[in-house]
Amino acid sequence: MIKLNPLLSILLIVLAHSLIAAPSPPKDLLSKIRDFRKAHEYKIIKEFTELLSIPNVSSDRENIRKNAVFIKKMMEKRGIKTQIMETAGNPIVFGKLDVPRATRTLMFYVHYDGQPVDPSEWTDTNPFKPALRPGKLKSGSTEPKPIPFPAQGENLNDDWRIYARGSSDDRAPIIGILSALDALKNSGFPLKNNLKFIFEGEEEAGSTNLRPFLEKHKNILKCDILFMCDGPAYYSGDPTLFFGVRGITSLEITIYGPNTSVHSGHYGNWAPNPVIRLAHLLASMRDTSGRVKIKGFYDTVVPLTNFEKEALKAIPSYENSIKEIYGFPEAENNWGSLMEAIQFPALNINGIQSGWVGKQARTIVPPEAIAAVDIRLVKGNDPDEMAEKVINHIKAQGYHVVEKDPDQKSRMKYGLIAKVRRSERGYKAARTPMDLPLSKLVIKSLTAHSEKKPVLLPSLGGSLPIYMFNDILHVPIIGVPIANHDNNQHQPDENIRIGHLWTGIETFAAILMLGEE
Amino acid sequence: MIKLNPLLSILLIVLAHSLIAAPSPPKDLLSKIRDFRKAHEYKIIKEFTELLSIPNVSSDRENIRKNAVFIKKMMEKRGIKTQIMETAGNPIVFGKLDVPRATRTLMFYVHYDGQPVDPSEWTDTNPFKPALRPGKLKSGSTEPKPIPFPAQGENLNDDWRIYARGSSDDRAPIIGILSALDALKNSGFPLKNNLKFIFEGEEEAGSTNLRPFLEKHKNILKCDILFMCDGPAYYSGDPTLFFGVRGITSLEITIYGPNTSVHSGHYGNWAPNPVIRLAHLLASMRDTSGRVKIKGFYDTVVPLTNFEKEALKAIPSYENSIKEIYGFPEAENNWGSLMEAIQFPALNINGIQSGWVGKQARTIVPPEAIAAVDIRLVKGNDPDEMAEKVINHIKAQGYHVVEKDPDQKSRMKYGLIAKVRRSERGYKAARTPMDLPLSKLVIKSLTAHSEKKPVLLPSLGGSLPIYMFNDILHVPIIGVPIANHDNNQHQPDENIRIGHLWTGIETFAAILMLGEE
Repeated sequence: MIKLNPLLSILLIVLAHSLIAAPSPPKDLLSKIRDFRKAHEYKIIKEFTELLSIPNVSSDRENIRKNAVFIKKMMEKRGIKTQIMETAGNPIVFGKLDVPRATRTLMFYVHYDGQPVDPSEWTDTNPFKPALRPGKLKSGSTEPKPIPFPAQGENLNDDWRIYARGSSDDRAPIIGILSALDALKNSGFPLKNNLKFIFEGEEEAGSTNLRPFLEKHKNILKCDILFMCDGPAYYSGDPTLFFGVRGITSLEITIYGPNTSVHSGHYGNWAPNPVIRLAHLLASMRDTSGRVKIKGFYDTVVPLTNFEKEALKAIPSYENSIKEIYGFPEAENNWGSLMEAIQFPALNINGIQSGWVGKQARTIVPPEAIAAVDIRLVKGNDPDEMAEKVINHIKAQGYHVVEKDPDQKSRMKYGLIAKVRRSERGYKAARTPMDLPLSKLVIKSLTAHSEKKPVLLPSLGGSLPIYMFNDILHVPIIGVPIANHDNNQHQPDENIRIGHLWTGIETFAAILMLGEE
Repeated sequence: MIKLNPLLSILLIVLAHSLIAAPSPPKDLLSKIRDFRKAHEYKIIKEFTELLSIPNVSSDRENIRKNAVFIKKMMEKRGIKTQIMETAGNPIVFGKLDVPRATRTLMFYVHYDGQPVDPSEWTDTNPFKPALRPGKLKSGSTEPKPIPFPAQGENLNDDWRIYARGSSDDRAPIIGILSALDALKNSGFPLKNNLKFIFEGEEEAGSTNLRPFLEKHKNILKCDILFMCDGPAYYSGDPTLFFGVRGITSLEITIYGPNTSVHSGHYGNWAPNPVIRLAHLLASMRDTSGRVKIKGFYDTVVPLTNFEKEALKAIPSYENSIKEIYGFPEAENNWGSLMEAIQFPALNINGIQSGWVGKQARTIVPPEAIAAVDIRLVKGNDPDEMAEKVINHIKAQGYHVVEKDPDQKSRMKYGLIAKVRRSERGYKAARTPMDLPLSKLVIKSLTAHSEKKPVLLPSLGGSLPIYMFNDILHVPIIGVPIANHDNNQHQPDENIRIGHLWTGIETFAAILMLGEE
């Protein structure tokens, strides 16, 4: 028997404990992660900009594959067992990090492809030559001009931004998660959850091959919880989790007048004006305060739980700044806060077109008027059923509803004809209850290791096909958005704010440590 | 004293009568004109197609001048004293034919310029290589194919059509009037009215230089009556006179939402949707039956006289065929016949635009929605006053009305902003009373020498700046439209139906003989 001195025995106990159970992460996890980041900014940014330099437009299959290969290397450097898995379209990078004795598996979804780019629309920089600007590009300006990336040992300012396609949407979480892993390792926080990573390469092209992939590989994709790492954090920039997304379905409504443009002098007051008809139809759908008047439109909404309502109430109000940013003094209706408003289904007129306006305007009665409409769905709304309600409303206004342009016979038979095309069949909303044990664990970990109280959103306003993962994986899904809200997603001059990237690393570190207290 | 035999004395009386007073035109004037035309179709069509072969787009100043020179020669061949008179833009061809002892001067207005052309949009023919088709081009088809123009001695079928820019609008009346002169001369009907001709070269470019021309030359333009030879005859194809035109003014209304497109998911239900706002606004302007609901919109309308009302009632109904042609079973409202409906002011939505539709559709709340509106005015309506009524209506809906895009400060001050731009200041309507002595003489002559009862329209639905002639010349103005209503005016495949051209020649012959019974 060996006698140990007291100090050594304490050390051994600590050691034993670390082998059989997770150590409580020190209260200063946040500061350790931050220290690591501050010491490694040069390296993090270097790796990130190397990734951002690879063009990632979904349709550019050659470069998409280069992204996949690069990301695989990034993951392997962190000891993640990674493979490039083929689909009928772009490959999915799948990674796995098994942790001895871990009982829980966290899976992270990110997409590495980006929206198409028109370099000529970018302000002085190239979408695939990442540029650092000491602030946000002023609207309609070329200021502030790009500056050199800092040298090793220099730090970046939180308000600086990197401009590149995919810098926010959605390659930021890749560097975010992997840097969080580095920071945890370097700071001596051993992982206690198994990790899986599914990095998609064609989200911006509609995720056409994702469902078959999930179905085919559902065994290797087994996990306890899925984190969707996409989208912007709340306006405040505080760590954000979202527990759901709205669903969507889209319609296009065409209303007919004469079968060709007719002279508004010869026929004005007599030939039916399709714009006026469409105006009355649209006005019948929503009142001036924005409430949808379509019968049953709100009937199937699953009400928020008290937990969700409380979470909404706790969200700091940014409405006034958002209104200021977008230049309107009053929101459309009296739903309450923006975050409350998006918990309800919406009927959005995305566009309308008939004849010409401006210099092209012609004095005609145009032959048709077209409105593009999307319906944002919340939990409980079925896309087909909601579209059907709109169609029934149109019928109730006296319209004969068709799916194709009417022929002469139909035109002469029906006075009022509406063509309704389901432009996107769409998909359901998804909402993970915030009070599931795993949800609570995530909230707890992020709350414990964040400087600010996390923003908890029952649902984002936007739509993601989360239902697809729900249908196949049957696990809770929680969103972890880290980008700045003003990242110019899908537009020229996409960017990420440095401070948001740093907060993102801290957020991922807290989530990776889930359940470790 | 010389004794004469009875036959000679009768001849002398006839001769004397012919020197001191107009002979009653024989009852068979119509058949003589028709006989002449039948015998000279080859020559008429040859001269006409030579004219139509000269490009006549208003902006093509070189070719426009070639038109003027060619027309001058055509006129001089008929003994008309002609000069090419300069304006700041395209020249006006002015002609004068003095008739000994005539006490009345008739002036004819025609324009020889045409709308722009895109030859690629024409069906297998060139806008300036006149083509003869044995019938009307079937919609969306290349049939019937062009056929050679008949050789000398061959006749044309009434239903054949000549396809060329300006074949109807408005070079047809030039050949119509000049052929009528030939026919009268050849058939032994001496003219008894002085004639003047004013052939404009930039009507399709807005007649910018017409008013200064009229003002400068009002002395040489003196006349007793002006015939505006433009536009299509009534649908029946019967000889047509119009006594007025509607005026016009145009507005463009812009309604604002957020100052940039925002994501319809993130902001749908909260950011104000400008399309819905505009839809409510437009719907508030006109009810579903097409009646304008703007306060005072109909207040200043000068009611039709009984004479005019009777004329309207006498017009044969072609509404069912027009509805069939344009593919709608019911007219917009309950004004009565088409010709009755256009005696009222109209508020036409010419076009509307916001965001995108179709394949370009994006799931956004668009920043603005724009409607192009024209107001057709009738006698009594002042353009400014009518536009003001629309603007007042918009204000009454709660909008702050501006003339320029609002800045951020205005946006934040006013919830509802409408930009209203008077896109065309416009001009008043004009309506010559049908029961003026001269009006009655014209009606009488055309009635006496037509096969069908002439169609008498108190006002056309379209707009022409007739007020300009009214203001300066102060004479009755009557319109003589001869083109087929389906002439594709201003569009590709403009054409004239041969039968309409022939009726046009007969109509002009009857008008030239005005007062001769």
